[in-house]
Amino acid sequence: MTADLAEPRSDEAVSCILRRRMAEKIDTLIEARWVIAVDPDDTVLDHHSIAIRDGKIIALLPTGEGAKKYQATETIELPEHALIPGLVNAHTHAPMSLFRGLADDMPLMQWLNEHIWPAESKWVNEEFVRDGTRLAVAEMLKSGTTCFSDMYFFADVTARTCIEIGMRAVVGLIVVDFPTVWAQSWEEYIHKGTKLHDDLRHIDLVTTAFAPHAPYSVSDAPFEKIRVVNNELNIPVHMHVHETAHEVEEAVAKTGMRPLQRLARLDLLNLNLVAVHMTALLPEEIESLAKVNASVVHCPESNMKLASGFCPVKALLNAGVNVAIGTDGAASNNDLDMLDELRAAALLAKVVAHDATAVPAHTALRMATLNGARALHLDEHVGSLEPGKLADIVAIDLSVISSQPVYDPLSQIVYTATREQVSDVWIAGKRLLDHRQLVTLDEESILQKACEWRDRIAAYDEKSKS
Amino acid sequence: MTADLAEPRSDEAVSCILRRRMAEKIDTLIEARWVIAVDPDDTVLDHHSIAIRDGKIIALLPTGEGAKKYQATETIELPEHALIPGLVNAHTHAPMSLFRGLADDMPLMQWLNEHIWPAESKWVNEEFVRDGTRLAVAEMLKSGTTCFSDMYFFADVTARTCIEIGMRAVVGLIVVDFPTVWAQSWEEYIHKGTKLHDDLRHIDLVTTAFAPHAPYSVSDAPFEKIRVVNNELNIPVHMHVHETAHEVEEAVAKTGMRPLQRLARLDLLNLNLVAVHMTALLPEEIESLAKVNASVVHCPESNMKLASGFCPVKALLNAGVNVAIGTDGAASNNDLDMLDELRAAALLAKVVAHDATAVPAHTALRMATLNGARALHLDEHVGSLEPGKLADIVAIDLSVISSQPVYDPLSQIVYTATREQVSDVWIAGKRLLDHRQLVTLDEESILQKACEWRDRIAAYDEKSKS
Repeated sequence: MTADLAEPRSDEAVSCILRRRMAEKIDTLIEARWVIAVDPDDTVLDHHSIAIRDGKIIALLPTGEGAKKYQATETIELPEHALIPGLVNAHTHAPMSLFRGLADDMPLMQWLNEHIWPAESKWVNEEFVRDGTRLAVAEMLKSGTTCFSDMYFFADVTARTCIEIGMRAVVGLIVVDFPTVWAQSWEEYIHKGTKLHDDLRHIDLVTTAFAPHAPYSVSDAPFEKIRVVNNELNIPVHMHVHETAHEVEEAVAKTGMRPLQRLARLDLLNLNLVAVHMTALLPEEIESLAKVNASVVHCPESNMKLASGFCPVKALLNAGVNVAIGTDGAASNNDLDMLDELRAAALLAKVVAHDATAVPAHTALRMATLNGARALHLDEHVGSLEPGKLADIVAIDLSVISSQPVYDPLSQIVYTATREQVSDVWIAGKRLLDHRQLVTLDEESILQKACEWRDRIAAYDEKSKS
Repeated sequence: MTADLAEPRSDEAVSCILRRRMAEKIDTLIEARWVIAVDPDDTVLDHHSIAIRDGKIIALLPTGEGAKKYQATETIELPEHALIPGLVNAHTHAPMSLFRGLADDMPLMQWLNEHIWPAESKWVNEEFVRDGTRLAVAEMLKSGTTCFSDMYFFADVTARTCIEIGMRAVVGLIVVDFPTVWAQSWEEYIHKGTKLHDDLRHIDLVTTAFAPHAPYSVSDAPFEKIRVVNNELNIPVHMHVHETAHEVEEAVAKTGMRPLQRLARLDLLNLNLVAVHMTALLPEEIESLAKVNASVVHCPESNMKLASGFCPVKALLNAGVNVAIGTDGAASNNDLDMLDELRAAALLAKVVAHDATAVPAHTALRMATLNGARALHLDEHVGSLEPGKLADIVAIDLSVISSQPVYDPLSQIVYTATREQVSDVWIAGKRLLDHRQLVTLDEESILQKACEWRDRIAAYDEKSKS
């Protein structure tokens, strides 16, 4: 080896050294078979690389050029993988993953009254929320989700847990008319919520949304207070709206108004509104959502499982409404798998609209990434693979039997890929899933905690039924 | 060690030796965390074992007892797995897996006229069918399917390929009015079909069904011939029927009859009928199917993706119709994953019926196993884990994050499991998937062939579009 050093350097070697000296230093260079940036367009880039520095994407470029232009601390080769923006789960109740499969195949009210609500009032505390969030985030990272919008008690614990893990989240500041373990009055809900918002104001990774539960469970007074406070905060208002036709009918009987009509009267139908579920919509309601740039979160599997109804996704998109995708909680799905969910969205929209061209693959991917980011007011920072945005990136391995042959990688991601094909995940440039291994979470201890909660909860659920 | 042999034997050691001498010899003992037999009932058996001899299940028993009673050549411990009957894919076009994702998100007729039919007329030959079947069977085994009912050209090649692999199949004897690469006239289709049936008469693994394509593509004369020949053969008649409302309307306009009505007039509405898709059904049609014990194959993902319509699954089941599940071909799904498909069936049925209790988890699993076997006339031999039946068994690993906690293993299989949780598969007692490794197929060579076909087909598809 010493002899080599003494030898005169060839022109090529000199040029190589010069190139290295001139090369820009970056943290990570990911060389992939395909890159699907989503924005500015859905083009599938062949043999492209993503350059990352200080947590941000600084360039997308052909792989040959990337190796010349940059000197990366770490270069990662993914020769059979597609890179997509991290998936954004725009509606979930993360800690409820501890109730996954506790009660299936029953009518909504029996499910709530006999199982979910008793279980919640018995079990939900800070420890439950921490363990449930860790289980949920582990599942989400392993299925390509890099950001989720949550609605649950102890949002402070969810926020803290996500910061520890390095997971991006929008925690919902719950408001509901009745007292719970989290607060006793609507004033207290709003007070605790705004305090949490304030505590998180210097944190990039975790932001907030107001999360009034639903029009049927929140009175005018708290809604009015939210509107006033939100004139200053200007954060999303994340809410279940028109989940079922029954909810709409009941509202009309009680208030003389459809729920969306009441929200409009309360001046909450605006671009901060993130309306979840949205079955049972009139054409003029779709127009009114489009007019104010409100967002809709479609949860196809929950809507199917609870027999809630069909969200008119094609009509919403055609009207120009921003439609995102959410899994809902694991108790009504039963997973937090956004790849599964975006496929369900693409498939269901077609048969509901009687149109096989409705929600094509690229639209489904956009709904599950950029549209989610937009609903959460995060689209300046995430939702697509563009220079200047944070490096929230997911690698999907398309070399498996069930995704072959690959005529169109985007189509294969939407119509064939399962969560196990997610090999690597980065959030703000930090690799949180590395060859399917969680980096900042201990999977064994999460599984252990899940077993412990199951034993306690199952014993109580059995007892309460008998 | 020699010293030990010389020592006087303890009572316990003697009793152990006696037990071993008295123990019944078997080939395989699978000790699982859970066993879900499906028949005689859906009970989840805790810590049970399955004893296998000569390809058949000889007993299901608590794991402690199994180890005492049997002396097995091979004992397999699956401490976090559920055993279920092998999944039965009741409708597919296996070789079309080579067209997976070739043309998505387009209307049915554009998809057929501009892509699928030109591709088929250009590419389908014996080599295509062999390579496509191998790719499809690899995918099916890796997702827990142990039997499939196929409808495609060169059924002889499909049969031979399945025999080589050890895969159970029911190959469709295609009949259609127009000439194809397989036959020139309906007489030739039926002649080749009955000859293949005859060639396979001593083969247990591969059986046959008539496969007239659909009422709109088969005239009365071939249908009448099928009926006459089938008086003797008595095999299933596997056919696309009422795939869309449009098909029904067109039939009424042309023939004055709804397709099912025409089949009844042709005396083909009987217990051999395996009617695939079946959207657009009148209540009296559902009654007529139930009355004669005909079977329906529900293909939820294909029906959604092609915007075909909703099969009234709950109404069919309530009427007593045997409803099985199929994936359809990979060109309209785009996978052959029965776990994914049975979840889609369970979810979709609920929202279509406005009833969250429709198609509960145990019904979905039964549809995907025993009901499929019944439709294919195989329920005496497979479809449930019962002593006397063939050992077609699938192990599903429920220890993964996304299936935790496990309150109800059956529910977690239906609502959370993905194909990658299928760890092991046995067909007639032979292990064809061993810790996710295919035993009788070379995955590398299948992938290589898929790439070669893609390159050829994609180049032609591009050229034919320009």
